[in-house]
Amino acid sequence: MTTKEMTETTEEVVEPTRTHQTIEKAMQAVDEVMFNVVSSDVEVLRDASRHILEAGGKRVRPRLVTLSYLALGGEDLEGIAPAAAALELVHTASVVHDDINDHGVVRRGRPSVNAIWGRTFALLTGDYLFTKVYELMAPYGREMNELFAQATIALVEGETLQAAAVKNKNFSREVYMDIIARKTAVLFKIGAMMGGQLAEATDEQLEALSQFGFNIGLAFQIVDDVLDIIGDEEQLGKTAGIDIEQGKGFTAAEGDVMESIKRKLMSADRLDKARAQARTLMEQAVDTLIDTIPPSTYRDELVALAHLIVERDR
Amino acid sequence: MTTKEMTETTEEVVEPTRTHQTIEKAMQAVDEVMFNVVSSDVEVLRDASRHILEAGGKRVRPRLVTLSYLALGGEDLEGIAPAAAALELVHTASVVHDDINDHGVVRRGRPSVNAIWGRTFALLTGDYLFTKVYELMAPYGREMNELFAQATIALVEGETLQAAAVKNKNFSREVYMDIIARKTAVLFKIGAMMGGQLAEATDEQLEALSQFGFNIGLAFQIVDDVLDIIGDEEQLGKTAGIDIEQGKGFTAAEGDVMESIKRKLMSADRLDKARAQARTLMEQAVDTLIDTIPPSTYRDELVALAHLIVERDR
Repeated sequence: MTTKEMTETTEEVVEPTRTHQTIEKAMQAVDEVMFNVVSSDVEVLRDASRHILEAGGKRVRPRLVTLSYLALGGEDLEGIAPAAAALELVHTASVVHDDINDHGVVRRGRPSVNAIWGRTFALLTGDYLFTKVYELMAPYGREMNELFAQATIALVEGETLQAAAVKNKNFSREVYMDIIARKTAVLFKIGAMMGGQLAEATDEQLEALSQFGFNIGLAFQIVDDVLDIIGDEEQLGKTAGIDIEQGKGFTAAEGDVMESIKRKLMSADRLDKARAQARTLMEQAVDTLIDTIPPSTYRDELVALAHLIVERDR
Repeated sequence: MTTKEMTETTEEVVEPTRTHQTIEKAMQAVDEVMFNVVSSDVEVLRDASRHILEAGGKRVRPRLVTLSYLALGGEDLEGIAPAAAALELVHTASVVHDDINDHGVVRRGRPSVNAIWGRTFALLTGDYLFTKVYELMAPYGREMNELFAQATIALVEGETLQAAAVKNKNFSREVYMDIIARKTAVLFKIGAMMGGQLAEATDEQLEALSQFGFNIGLAFQIVDDVLDIIGDEEQLGKTAGIDIEQGKGFTAAEGDVMESIKRKLMSADRLDKARAQARTLMEQAVDTLIDTIPPSTYRDELVALAHLIVERDR
């Protein structure tokens, strides 16, 4: 092996290592912001917030913000962390409230906030996270805050459409797509756009990030629902199938509707088709990205994230 | 009567009329913003939000923002309306969530959101209002958003301290003052400061508004609690005493604790003392204001609002 070859080999190893180190450093900064911002002197708010944050979760939303930012040449990891943290916290708030409505007792492999602290404090913890998000987003300008507002409004609308669909026994394909677009895909879309916006992306690049985020968001939720149906509690770390059973408290008759929905969804054929649809959405997302965003190790990481979202089994 | 006398009389009448017209125009603008911003295509969110907004409420928080703004020489009624609306919406969100935790079935003389739409949709309606507030506040700068965040965080902390005090049977005077400071007085304080900030008040004026708002906020909550105890459902338009009974679902034994708290609070002597304390706080608030803010018909209206807060019987 010549010296030149050795150097090349070393560089090949060093480059991805440096990339991963930067990303992990950025993600640590996001976690630090989240844990610091919830350090209320009101014990139950601090403890319940930390409990749900410590449980982990995939942190896929702040990762998307961070990778989009880095892929567009952004370098200020401390500067982006609060915005990425805000997106994760608003998702976390909705998760905590979701567990109240669904009577979820396990979340991310741990007892849910309402299982430990009860419904009243779970509700207030979710509200607390919503208000901490105001604090995190305050330093950013009008455009960022308008983007952010759009994502959070869609999130709550999507959750509401889902609860209404269960209540009204109207769970058509069209309704399902509208639900997952709002409750998940818009947040992913705006996460990618926020990263781009902070890195001063061009309009064309922002549009590409928007489409990329939206498509992998749809794919993410489809895969999540597939896993929710096939998974058991242990594998998924949350009460299995509870998303599907949401709203079962409305009337006794709805149990049957949910059973029927589940039976339909649970056929192996349907699950395969859902996964295939997710894969198609992901491939479109990657194509859009590669057409518009200049190549870099961070762009590669965005592509890897898109693949991971579709191929994961938990 | 000479012509001069006639003119003077006319001016005396016209000036307060013009003042009131301006204030009512501003308050109408606030209401318009609120109704417009909740016009989601998701029916239940739109209907439930309108339901609680149509029920009225005193709109004392946006009025405080508006009067502070006008008293400091602000003239852009359209410009202030979204900030004032945001403060009222965040209060409304907390009211909707409060009725879930308290099992309140009447609010502002109408069925509560959870009484009509159920717990799940009431929770989501509150969340929706929190996210609409992001939209309303997005155009304002960093300072305004930081002030706003501070108010909303304190609000949720105060509500949580209240629920914790009930649960832990620890309702000392000190705890009570901490609760009402956070859940009410900080929001009033920041409402007044936001009005001043938007009118480019000096630091000294902002400090005076801050103290004025805080003190009338404390007074407001003390009077509210007094009225809550002496009032019946018809007079107050909400389930009487339910604020005090909050958390009764925790354990059976707490019913007794609440009874004891109520008995203590309900003695006529204590109520008189509470009202007197509110009056003292209000008078301090008015003194601070008059020492620092130049006289105007709008300053008079701030003083009148302070008096109304203490002397009201509903």
